[in-house]
Amino acid sequence: MSFINDNFMLKTETARKLYSAIKDLPIIDYHCHLSPKLIAEDYKFRNAFDLFLGGDHYKWRQMRTNGIDEKYITGDADEYEKFLAFARTMPYLIGNPLYHWTHLELKRYFDIDETLSEKTCKAIWDKCNECLAKPEYSAQNLIKRSNVEIICTTDDPADTLEYHEALKDFSTKILPTFRPDKAVEIGKETFLPYIEAIGVKSYDELVNWMVERIGYFNDHGCRLSDHALEYVPFAIGDAKAAFDKRMAGKELTRVEIDAFKTEMLKVCAKEYTRLGWTMQLHIGALRNNNRRMYEKLGADVGFDSINDLNIAECLSAFMDNLEYDDCLPKTILYTLNPKDNYVLGTMLGNFQKAPIPGKIQFGSGWWFNDQRDGMEAQMQALANLGMIARFVGMLTDSRSFVSYPRHEYFRRIMCNLLGKWAEEGEYPMDMEMLTEIASGIAYYNSKNYFNF
Amino acid sequence: MSFINDNFMLKTETARKLYSAIKDLPIIDYHCHLSPKLIAEDYKFRNAFDLFLGGDHYKWRQMRTNGIDEKYITGDADEYEKFLAFARTMPYLIGNPLYHWTHLELKRYFDIDETLSEKTCKAIWDKCNECLAKPEYSAQNLIKRSNVEIICTTDDPADTLEYHEALKDFSTKILPTFRPDKAVEIGKETFLPYIEAIGVKSYDELVNWMVERIGYFNDHGCRLSDHALEYVPFAIGDAKAAFDKRMAGKELTRVEIDAFKTEMLKVCAKEYTRLGWTMQLHIGALRNNNRRMYEKLGADVGFDSINDLNIAECLSAFMDNLEYDDCLPKTILYTLNPKDNYVLGTMLGNFQKAPIPGKIQFGSGWWFNDQRDGMEAQMQALANLGMIARFVGMLTDSRSFVSYPRHEYFRRIMCNLLGKWAEEGEYPMDMEMLTEIASGIAYYNSKNYFNF
Amino acid sequence: MSFINDNFMLKTETARKLYSAIKDLPIIDYHCHLSPKLIAEDYKFRNAFDLFLGGDHYKWRQMRTNGIDEKYITGDADEYEKFLAFARTMPYLIGNPLYHWTHLELKRYFDIDETLSEKTCKAIWDKCNECLAKPEYSAQNLIKRSNVEIICTTDDPADTLEYHEALKDFSTKILPTFRPDKAVEIGKETFLPYIEAIGVKSYDELVNWMVERIGYFNDHGCRLSDHALEYVPFAIGDAKAAFDKRMAGKELTRVEIDAFKTEMLKVCAKEYTRLGWTMQLHIGALRNNNRRMYEKLGADVGFDSINDLNIAECLSAFMDNLEYDDCLPKTILYTLNPKDNYVLGTMLGNFQKAPIPGKIQFGSGWWFNDQRDGMEAQMQALANLGMIARFVGMLTDSRSFVSYPRHEYFRRIMCNLLGKWAEEGEYPMDMEMLTEIASGIAYYNSKNYFNF
Repeated sequence: MSFINDNFMLKTETARKLYSAIKDLPIIDYHCHLSPKLIAEDYKFRNAFDLFLGGDHYKWRQMRTNGIDEKYITGDADEYEKFLAFARTMPYLIGNPLYHWTHLELKRYFDIDETLSEKTCKAIWDKCNECLAKPEYSAQNLIKRSNVEIICTTDDPADTLEYHEALKDFSTKILPTFRPDKAVEIGKETFLPYIEAIGVKSYDELVNWMVERIGYFNDHGCRLSDHALEYVPFAIGDAKAAFDKRMAGKELTRVEIDAFKTEMLKVCAKEYTRLGWTMQLHIGALRNNNRRMYEKLGADVGFDSINDLNIAECLSAFMDNLEYDDCLPKTILYTLNPKDNYVLGTMLGNFQKAPIPGKIQFGSGWWFNDQRDGMEAQMQALANLGMIARFVGMLTDSRSFVSYPRHEYFRRIMCNLLGKWAEEGEYPMDMEMLTEIASGIAYYNSKNYFNF
Repeated sequence: MSFINDNFMLKTETARKLYSAIKDLPIIDYHCHLSPKLIAEDYKFRNAFDLFLGGDHYKWRQMRTNGIDEKYITGDADEYEKFLAFARTMPYLIGNPLYHWTHLELKRYFDIDETLSEKTCKAIWDKCNECLAKPEYSAQNLIKRSNVEIICTTDDPADTLEYHEALKDFSTKILPTFRPDKAVEIGKETFLPYIEAIGVKSYDELVNWMVERIGYFNDHGCRLSDHALEYVPFAIGDAKAAFDKRMAGKELTRVEIDAFKTEMLKVCAKEYTRLGWTMQLHIGALRNNNRRMYEKLGADVGFDSINDLNIAECLSAFMDNLEYDDCLPKTILYTLNPKDNYVLGTMLGNFQKAPIPGKIQFGSGWWFNDQRDGMEAQMQALANLGMIARFVGMLTDSRSFVSYPRHEYFRRIMCNLLGKWAEEGEYPMDMEMLTEIASGIAYYNSKNYFNF
Repeated sequence: MSFINDNFMLKTETARKLYSAIKDLPIIDYHCHLSPKLIAEDYKFRNAFDLFLGGDHYKWRQMRTNGIDEKYITGDADEYEKFLAFARTMPYLIGNPLYHWTHLELKRYFDIDETLSEKTCKAIWDKCNECLAKPEYSAQNLIKRSNVEIICTTDDPADTLEYHEALKDFSTKILPTFRPDKAVEIGKETFLPYIEAIGVKSYDELVNWMVERIGYFNDHGCRLSDHALEYVPFAIGDAKAAFDKRMAGKELTRVEIDAFKTEMLKVCAKEYTRLGWTMQLHIGALRNNNRRMYEKLGADVGFDSINDLNIAECLSAFMDNLEYDDCLPKTILYTLNPKDNYVLGTMLGNFQKAPIPGKIQFGSGWWFNDQRDGMEAQMQALANLGMIARFVGMLTDSRSFVSYPRHEYFRRIMCNLLGKWAEEGEYPMDMEMLTEIASGIAYYNSKNYFNF
């Protein structure tokens, strides 16, 4: 029996029935980091290295953990040698989601039953490369075979969205997401160059520019924004003064920075509310921890981790500030630190509001939490504290064209959890209702929530 | 088979045997928010809305989450329409304790086997209302049929306790609990009006008043106090000076506030110690997060959540300060944030002291944690770090007259946990000792600990 | 069947097979608090009290929790009476690791099948004492019968290591560990007396002395250091100026203290790196919480608990500071607060580096976490976020000569976890690979990692 078999992650009969009832629902991948350019150009992968390892810092990180030299990770080694180094690492990844993701990918896209290891490496390399040489394995065709209805990429406000436009007749909707971090993060080095690049001279111009860009994105089908918050900022102050001071080249205090961020997020939130968008807040990453590697390789190469700041009071004040002024949009709160699960799970309830079921959402296990334990902890917290039945469910958050089986992974884990509750008598064995709930989380809740 | 059946939450044979051995023990509900006035007046519920939804912000919160308009929650809709809105929400509450609580209540008080939903709503409404029209369903009779030996309500120091006095011959002991938050929270808006209302002019008068009221409560059978701590205050300073400054209408610094609170709590703790009372500290709520709804509906209406402050150092210093001066009473520490479970579970051990087994207690899963996962997490932490066998167990913390089945819920979950340990060989299959432990947690530990 | 039987903690067939394959591997106890003097002098235990209760503050703590008077703990009661008080406490320790540890110790060293209680106390006392009177139960012989290959004690830099030298021909390697807390903790009362005692006059002399002592320890086979960090210090500043100010009797600011600590740890880390040592950081204890008992009994007597400070940002900055200057040694990060498990589990990945597999390690469940739940939580976090297959596994951290069965306890729990993953289809049922991983965690990873 293949490691990836029908019962994978499904530990009860009810779980298997439930999964079977929902497995063919389309995928709405409402948050990912796929390159619209590669989709538009229908990129062809030159080999298994290119597809699996070319840009995947999750894998690089574990290869480093396994003691593999950087030469075989981001260095100048031969691509097969790099794939081999990865294959050698694989058997040691017991209990790690990469073990599951990789074998789901090999099974679903290449029909490979063998597990990856030094011994199977060459055969798997050859079989993958043989497939990748075929037109059915281009970027667009990988998407087509994945049953994806909608993909939301992540885009800078200054983006022309030309690739999204080029893709407007593609069978899967490829929509942009508005991610204005560079225009908000006034304390960072990137701020002044960004402001210069977009040609903005004053605070009012920046506000106008943001509003204009949100409109432009909206015209291109955008229905979500995304904000990365290292911490949750909240301060009431003079955003314009902070902007002017920064433009004059001066250092801002933390309070000035937070006043600017609070106001700029609010400017955005007003527009999101007006347009019926959803605001995503990603809280708690601690990035670029290794300066040496940052200087060598840049950002997003596998040197990030989880922060542990206190977030409840500022997040409450921030959301209340918006709600009080009638500009709290649909919101998804994500945390990278599972210690926050109960804080977020209860924060939702402070701002739920008719007529949208689950208006404030607790985002699925994110990044380091995108594994069975992490997803279960998030779903259990959500169920105990709120309504998992209204949960908009999974997103890949991925840069990879073969990451769609993570929706399968999530669906299996979700059905396993619901099935367990029913089998253990914690919910009635009512297959109709269970199926409604499972298919809601898998697909329909997203469908109804986002207004694509 | 009814959803609520004999095996509900009991997953092993040993768990079932244990539960069967302890299920008929009386209930000591040592912390709740029942209205002594309603008991004394033997309130009759006009219908199922009045009983189940009239004051239950847990339910309101989940109805809002489900997208239901405020009209059907706290608004002017017809009471059946509100009950219907609640019934429609119920099937979506998979994994939420409301699903279990509600069906326990329907089964135990109304012998209803059907689960609540839009379809069953009218029949359940009718059946409940038919019962509620009978004298057996008055407030006092609901208590009588619940096998409750003692109820501790939550009362302001200024309370006359007239209703408690009126109830002194009632079959269940209805005792007051001393909750002096308004006299302690010097930083809040409520402080000055409260001080004026109780007719106190100076710090010394306030101290004397507190001591006098504790004595008055003690004479009325009070054996517990309760303090809500948003954070754990600790500072050594001039409490009298802080009081005078505040009375002069000035704003206090955080250190001044904390010095006052520390000293005022200590004044109380001395009396508690002298009288053999138990001090309860409820740590970590973040209240009234939604100003708009607070302005509309006030406090305790479903807009509270979990804070995430650091508590270990101040709590240690506060307890040490009392212990060093010989005035640390029996204490129950509750946390709203499960991240604190291991902090509290080990804090206990710093201050345990003969001759009282479990003198310092880790309170049962509170509020948002009052569900299977939360209760299990609290009990597992307590067992790993201290002695669960000395645990005083469950309390309802409820405003509802039909919340006693939560003791059943707790007992089932507790027996399930003990049973699991025995079945999995982590404790000997010694039914005598297991039953002693289970009945201790269910009843006898409380009985021995509180000196009612 | 004895409570401690072949299947203890092993819940699946695969777990049992795995454990059976690795159970006879030797033990490398790379961190403990055994007294080298007692080993060198081949201490004979006068009775079961002396062996089990003489210095074990874990047990004292639970006896206090059980309401036992201090007389029977650290007071002047008869030793059998103390043992009896402990025996009476035992049955109430359901769910506590002491229940498992004690019965493992009774079974493995004394072949006792009965569980300890008031009833069995006398017989167990007699049987243990009969054994302890024999030469086979001396300190050295207890070690010999425990299959321990290497023991690393914990030693002050000023130690002469005479006992380690005296033991250099003993069958088990007894190696020192360098623990320079007293020379680093510049803010504490102990600092000036220590500096005076070691005869150091200036900052440069202190640095030289540290380097010299590291060399001396290295010559005696030391391959690890250990640092207890109440919080994670990080500041860049003038360490020499801080030292001078402190020597002049002045109080330092927090920033000055942290600048000194950062620099002093870095001085050490450079040497550790040069010599291929491993640096252990123990983070998050809150010690001596009860002043009254501290004044009466001193430190390490059962009044410590878990702190809850934020650690991610400073730990990242500290490690990055070392890595950037090429002096980050092999490191083991331990946390006392399980809320940090995901912070540490991802912090590792920021600094992993060829050629050492698992160069940065997440230390096994420590102190209060050294129980099934704590060990499982640590291993699950490690597996999800990194590579459990490269984990160096268990250490006793103990003062007791009969604590080696905690390695058995850990191995059973670890095999149970791996076995569960395989049986539930989350890893292939590949016994060869599973055995390689389990034996790696039990023994070979340590063997390869530490370079003893």
